[in-house]
Amino acid sequence: MTDTRIETDSMGEIAVPADRYWGAQTQRSLTNFKIGGEKMPPALVEALGIQKLAAARTNLALGALDGKLAEAICQAAQEVADGKLMDHFPLVVWQTGSGTQSNMNANEVIAGRANEILSGSKGGKEPVHPNDHCNMGQSSNDTFPTVMHIAAVQKIVGETIPSLGRLHAALDTKAKAFDKIIKIGRTHLMDATPLTLGQEFSGYATQVAYGIKRLEGSIERLMQLAQGGTAVGTGLNAMEGFAEAFAAEVAKITQLPFVTAENKFEALAAHDAVVEASGALNTIACSLMKIANDVRLLGSGPRCGFGELRLPANEPGSSIMPGKVNPTQAEAMTMVCAQVIGNHTTCTVAGSNGHFELNVFKPVLIYSLLQSAQLIGDACDSFRTNCVEGIEADEARISALMQQSLMLVTALNPHIGYDNAAKVAKKAYTDNSTLKEAAIALGLLSAEDFDAWVKPDNMLGPRAKN
Amino acid sequence: MTDTRIETDSMGEIAVPADRYWGAQTQRSLTNFKIGGEKMPPALVEALGIQKLAAARTNLALGALDGKLAEAICQAAQEVADGKLMDHFPLVVWQTGSGTQSNMNANEVIAGRANEILSGSKGGKEPVHPNDHCNMGQSSNDTFPTVMHIAAVQKIVGETIPSLGRLHAALDTKAKAFDKIIKIGRTHLMDATPLTLGQEFSGYATQVAYGIKRLEGSIERLMQLAQGGTAVGTGLNAMEGFAEAFAAEVAKITQLPFVTAENKFEALAAHDAVVEASGALNTIACSLMKIANDVRLLGSGPRCGFGELRLPANEPGSSIMPGKVNPTQAEAMTMVCAQVIGNHTTCTVAGSNGHFELNVFKPVLIYSLLQSAQLIGDACDSFRTNCVEGIEADEARISALMQQSLMLVTALNPHIGYDNAAKVAKKAYTDNSTLKEAAIALGLLSAEDFDAWVKPDNMLGPRAKN
Amino acid sequence: MTDTRIETDSMGEIAVPADRYWGAQTQRSLTNFKIGGEKMPPALVEALGIQKLAAARTNLALGALDGKLAEAICQAAQEVADGKLMDHFPLVVWQTGSGTQSNMNANEVIAGRANEILSGSKGGKEPVHPNDHCNMGQSSNDTFPTVMHIAAVQKIVGETIPSLGRLHAALDTKAKAFDKIIKIGRTHLMDATPLTLGQEFSGYATQVAYGIKRLEGSIERLMQLAQGGTAVGTGLNAMEGFAEAFAAEVAKITQLPFVTAENKFEALAAHDAVVEASGALNTIACSLMKIANDVRLLGSGPRCGFGELRLPANEPGSSIMPGKVNPTQAEAMTMVCAQVIGNHTTCTVAGSNGHFELNVFKPVLIYSLLQSAQLIGDACDSFRTNCVEGIEADEARISALMQQSLMLVTALNPHIGYDNAAKVAKKAYTDNSTLKEAAIALGLLSAEDFDAWVKPDNMLGPRAKN
Amino acid sequence: MTDTRIETDSMGEIAVPADRYWGAQTQRSLTNFKIGGEKMPPALVEALGIQKLAAARTNLALGALDGKLAEAICQAAQEVADGKLMDHFPLVVWQTGSGTQSNMNANEVIAGRANEILSGSKGGKEPVHPNDHCNMGQSSNDTFPTVMHIAAVQKIVGETIPSLGRLHAALDTKAKAFDKIIKIGRTHLMDATPLTLGQEFSGYATQVAYGIKRLEGSIERLMQLAQGGTAVGTGLNAMEGFAEAFAAEVAKITQLPFVTAENKFEALAAHDAVVEASGALNTIACSLMKIANDVRLLGSGPRCGFGELRLPANEPGSSIMPGKVNPTQAEAMTMVCAQVIGNHTTCTVAGSNGHFELNVFKPVLIYSLLQSAQLIGDACDSFRTNCVEGIEADEARISALMQQSLMLVTALNPHIGYDNAAKVAKKAYTDNSTLKEAAIALGLLSAEDFDAWVKPDNMLGPRAKN
Repeated sequence: MTDTRIETDSMGEIAVPADRYWGAQTQRSLTNFKIGGEKMPPALVEALGIQKLAAARTNLALGALDGKLAEAICQAAQEVADGKLMDHFPLVVWQTGSGTQSNMNANEVIAGRANEILSGSKGGKEPVHPNDHCNMGQSSNDTFPTVMHIAAVQKIVGETIPSLGRLHAALDTKAKAFDKIIKIGRTHLMDATPLTLGQEFSGYATQVAYGIKRLEGSIERLMQLAQGGTAVGTGLNAMEGFAEAFAAEVAKITQLPFVTAENKFEALAAHDAVVEASGALNTIACSLMKIANDVRLLGSGPRCGFGELRLPANEPGSSIMPGKVNPTQAEAMTMVCAQVIGNHTTCTVAGSNGHFELNVFKPVLIYSLLQSAQLIGDACDSFRTNCVEGIEADEARISALMQQSLMLVTALNPHIGYDNAAKVAKKAYTDNSTLKEAAIALGLLSAEDFDAWVKPDNMLGPRAKN
Repeated sequence: MTDTRIETDSMGEIAVPADRYWGAQTQRSLTNFKIGGEKMPPALVEALGIQKLAAARTNLALGALDGKLAEAICQAAQEVADGKLMDHFPLVVWQTGSGTQSNMNANEVIAGRANEILSGSKGGKEPVHPNDHCNMGQSSNDTFPTVMHIAAVQKIVGETIPSLGRLHAALDTKAKAFDKIIKIGRTHLMDATPLTLGQEFSGYATQVAYGIKRLEGSIERLMQLAQGGTAVGTGLNAMEGFAEAFAAEVAKITQLPFVTAENKFEALAAHDAVVEASGALNTIACSLMKIANDVRLLGSGPRCGFGELRLPANEPGSSIMPGKVNPTQAEAMTMVCAQVIGNHTTCTVAGSNGHFELNVFKPVLIYSLLQSAQLIGDACDSFRTNCVEGIEADEARISALMQQSLMLVTALNPHIGYDNAAKVAKKAYTDNSTLKEAAIALGLLSAEDFDAWVKPDNMLGPRAKN
Repeated sequence: MTDTRIETDSMGEIAVPADRYWGAQTQRSLTNFKIGGEKMPPALVEALGIQKLAAARTNLALGALDGKLAEAICQAAQEVADGKLMDHFPLVVWQTGSGTQSNMNANEVIAGRANEILSGSKGGKEPVHPNDHCNMGQSSNDTFPTVMHIAAVQKIVGETIPSLGRLHAALDTKAKAFDKIIKIGRTHLMDATPLTLGQEFSGYATQVAYGIKRLEGSIERLMQLAQGGTAVGTGLNAMEGFAEAFAAEVAKITQLPFVTAENKFEALAAHDAVVEASGALNTIACSLMKIANDVRLLGSGPRCGFGELRLPANEPGSSIMPGKVNPTQAEAMTMVCAQVIGNHTTCTVAGSNGHFELNVFKPVLIYSLLQSAQLIGDACDSFRTNCVEGIEADEARISALMQQSLMLVTALNPHIGYDNAAKVAKKAYTDNSTLKEAAIALGLLSAEDFDAWVKPDNMLGPRAKN
Repeated sequence: MTDTRIETDSMGEIAVPADRYWGAQTQRSLTNFKIGGEKMPPALVEALGIQKLAAARTNLALGALDGKLAEAICQAAQEVADGKLMDHFPLVVWQTGSGTQSNMNANEVIAGRANEILSGSKGGKEPVHPNDHCNMGQSSNDTFPTVMHIAAVQKIVGETIPSLGRLHAALDTKAKAFDKIIKIGRTHLMDATPLTLGQEFSGYATQVAYGIKRLEGSIERLMQLAQGGTAVGTGLNAMEGFAEAFAAEVAKITQLPFVTAENKFEALAAHDAVVEASGALNTIACSLMKIANDVRLLGSGPRCGFGELRLPANEPGSSIMPGKVNPTQAEAMTMVCAQVIGNHTTCTVAGSNGHFELNVFKPVLIYSLLQSAQLIGDACDSFRTNCVEGIEADEARISALMQQSLMLVTALNPHIGYDNAAKVAKKAYTDNSTLKEAAIALGLLSAEDFDAWVKPDNMLGPRAKN
């Protein structure tokens, strides 16, 4: 139906859609891998544009690539980097495990577009050849790990970390705003000694702050680029100096301090750096799961739950229960966390299964990592703007609960000892009385003692030295 | 820019695109959940069509729903079930954890389309109301689990199991075709006693056959539908008999033996059935990982690997190494397995985190399960047609390797004992000689004995009784 | 220091402790694998006794093994099966991946003990040889999978399932006892429509009942025994009929319907059956995590939580807060669930990594599976006796919460429509009034209407047909 | 049977074995938690000794604790720290999720032993009281996280990292020793361009070197101690300055730079630092799985595998196949990796499930982390001494394989282009000829050209600039 043109590769001829830049190998992949619908992530395609641009510039500078061809390649590669040719990258994640077909997709599209620029005719291998020029001094085996790292770092540095930073700031703001609100603490879900709501939120803020540090730490090894290792890590067919110059070029383009990998054999054969970054996101998912769970539990009610927080009501909550409002942002967040935790298992399985000079789980590794980085980033923004920033404390409820807690008895330990204090708490619980009544009934102290010793305001920090 | 119309819900007014059927709650979700880009899977949207169709028919039959409204609702629901209105389901997975917004999306689209049918005007709540009519006697809390089960069973029964069946048949065919090819066995990756290539493939075929049984077994509890439980499992506001009649209607529409859930409280609050089905797919992923790994190892080479199998060459394998052919189908398969294994962790985390009357990880649970079922199905077909069916044995290579193996010595155990046989093997290994030479040199047997006792053809099964 | 004697294998001589039955290969393993301290589980050692006993009896019956030797072997094997020689099985899990060293440990101990019986002298290879007699017609490669299945099925059928059954009964008893207690339902942790506490517990009971079915279903393929496959699955050196007769013998000894595996190649090279059983335990862990979480949330307080249940106070809860009682049984249970979920990942990774004729993750697979089966069984008993059976409902608290819930408004849907009902709920929430007051203030119904329509007792099931 | 004495706690009296130092709460835990047999790891018990010692010294210095009592407490605590009282710590992992019972076990044993020192009579609460003195200014909620961190850091710094360091050195030594051995590279398991065996091993060495960095990085937040937060993080009942002085004391005792946690609320309520460290071990497990897999694949054979390496033969490999030698150290290592990966899932699930002021999965978190750290450390030593250090290259085999590889054709790319080079490779494969023969037959170059361009020695690095 669609108009086609003929493209060729070492296997022979094949028809491709006339309006697409891709060539024979991309087309074969479409035929051979009808699996799912998960396309290579746009961030990765854009990174391929950056990589081809940097490689062409480097080859030009090294005198290996003709200037006119280089110019056209650079123009086409820039278009890929800018996301303008996304419709020409149709391949799915479930292809060859080296990402060769997506590398060839980039080579073919850039050649096809460069040839159009130079000759007016889409596609083909003349004057720009996908392998000899676009892939000059490169292999999929060093190219794909390179774009994995570029895409991952750009996503993490550009989106995930800033979003975590904004969430941290929002939590920190709440911690300060809630600084004077004394509430019951809960350990084992049971009533415990008091703390301020601000102190509670400071724990959340700290978790997020540490998450940012974890993610920053995990980037260190992602900054290393495999490019220059070519087929097996030796660098065969690349020019001497290519690896270093290429990394510098990428650093310039992205404004991120990428360097060439210390050991190219490791950089092709293992993706421990991806597993590590996924691990940082996994730890962050644990933090966010905890925070979101606390928020929805503290907001539970409105009348039959903990009810200490009021969460923003963003939408009707129920299709059958009128007026119901649910902690939907916390739910989206915790679902994202479950996904990120599962993605980490995927990365772990994929990362552990390399063989010899190449790990061939590259596409699923970067698909998982980018999804996790994206979801954490987006979910933090959504959770922040639609929930955290609008959280209000129900101070009346908080105060009422705190006042009736039996665990204020802990303040008596230094005065009457643990065992006597335990008797007071038990008596109050059994009699459904106050601690004060129970303590006096047991003859352990006077009313004045109680009032002097049990002051929630004095229970928020260590005991001052006399 | 786009034309809009005003829709309302209990929160007030909101503008929606004029050319879309959805209403206020769908629109709010779009605003409130800008997280990732993973939309609710089409299979789930179609299941929502089936569910609304069955519910309307049941309410009509029970006398609860007006005939004229029912007719329009059924027509609209059928369009959803047929996938014709997919563009009207824009919501992502990362929304409320009950799937309420997608249920309301269905209610709104069906009401909006039914109103168009009845009044000529898209959208709105008159004469058909999204809640009162489309959601009549329903809650998201029973509806969403119901469509989760419908979608999952349809996918698994309609696609995954048949694809596994075809792969089993292809492996079984190879097992029979390779029945006479005697090869070296390998345990611990080390040379061991011989078997036929057909026997080796029969192991793979058995794994897949058992995988099908596992998946069939896991469906049992997916056949139970939560519908009729409404908000918390009690069935409040549904008509007596609704649950049973609804399940029968779904069974009729889908031609699959769905039944109403025995215990609606379990059906809303837990999704163990989803975790279970995901677990079956996880076990299948282990099987397929093993098979695909074996296939690529046996096909490794062409000159420096095991080299016993020749795999189809479907595409050029390398952008830098000319003429290279890679086991790309095995790679896509193993990446799919890594994804399915990770999805199972996601399902497990999600499934373990329900609270009280509702598990609110529903969207991520069904997203993961459907992705796994889809990918296993697609990958089996791709692996089968592009790899397994074209596998050829390199009989010369297989025979050469087998003949020189030291582990044929095992046939001597019953004649000269384990310890003496070990001496023969060690001597042959050290001298780089044949077993026969070593055995004779050690004076343990004669040449005639050796020839009589060490026959690979006789090493393929148990010892016949005298 | 310790007295030693000299034992030999094909590698030469080695000293072993004089008071131990084991031989050279066990001793070598002790030297070569100083990793962790996790010994082969006792249940596995006992299964090795059963396996060696059944093999000796079968070889005797087939005329392959001398009667006198057989008798001594059977006596020694029975002692292993009875757990009397546990101190003679010192090897850890982290050894060869086929479990060969533990199989040889059994062969050596049984030979060493049989030789003592026959000759008065511990150890050695005369008259009973570890390989030629104890391991007659066997390989570690079929023996170890066989004992994995025997041990797993005995543990699951003998301990895990009965314990789950007792927990189910206890939950079911509570469901019936709490049948009349009407309480607030909670979805998204938010107040929802009412149900009975008995209904809530019926959901838990159903989860456990289905868990038992899942585990029973997963045993089906564990009933297949690999024995008779010998080194690579062909059965080389075993007698014809050995496999079937052996399985029958094991069935007789264990009183469990074991059968010989249909396909011995699958039985050695894959352990999908172990992954499957682990998957069933993983699903059960999700169920138990949900139940235990609900129990501790419902029991939270005593004054500042949900407080609907009173859990048994088994021990002082805090080293600093006197009188504190914590839901410790729920905590032990949920920690067990986390362990079982992690073990399932271990099994999955291990199960996916077989190569050719043998999976060499056998010890870690059975270690994980047995630990999970043991922990689930023990934890269910502990949770049941120390928590579930003693749970009491705080009926006053339950009733007070239920009465004030806004979600009773749902009963008005069929009478005044969802949108009006939503207005009532919102007004009551905003005004901190009752639903009745709000509904009347809005002029939507009369006090009589409200009393007639909103009856929690009538909200526990579907609407009766007129 | 056993002699007992009576101990008491706030629940009443209970008999404990007369020869044990523990008291009522330990005894209750034994009764209430009959789950599995996994005891609290010795490293954790020793850390409890360190913690109680440091706390007593700090309380003494702050003037809170009587000097005579402090002296006895310190002596007893030192005995616990030295592992001398291990038999007095009978509790299992599956107890209360705060580890309260193990903290009380330590308090009771130390009080019981201190009382023996002071009064000659074991146990009891006089003159040293378990809570008032041993637990002075402490809560389980800050104590247990503190000992988790102490135990984990001591294990990781003292055992795991040094063992990884030794493995790195061994791999690095091999990389240097194998520097001149040119071998075929393999990507996708298929023959690729050459590299040296030394280069291949340099990749492994780099993976381990980075693993050490990852683990070191993950310790940063484990260095923070929760002590001083007491029950909920506020520090109630601790003296001002206690937290800082305590951390300094622990740093002095352990010679490790522990500090007091910045935010005590985070330190009690979350264990992200444990998840993070487990994540580092998980990444290391991926590295080691890859390395061990490569080693066993390269050592496969001896006659029918890759056969490039000769691994040390440490034990007989098979109970049925005489003379068989297996890569058993690689198998133990990969099983350890599977366990560590599973433990990480356990930690992740446990770490994500905290509530409010306390995460109550503490015991399972530290059990998993310590097991992973121990196993990785031990397995690296075992793998190194019993395998890596004894690896030899089979140079004849390596050379023969390399010479016949078709992928040497890649060296022709810059001279005749990718497409022509592909034709050469294909023709040689089809004709079973050499590349040289094929290239000449195709008329693409002369024999001299071929000899000049295709030199494996020149294929081990980038192309020199002219």
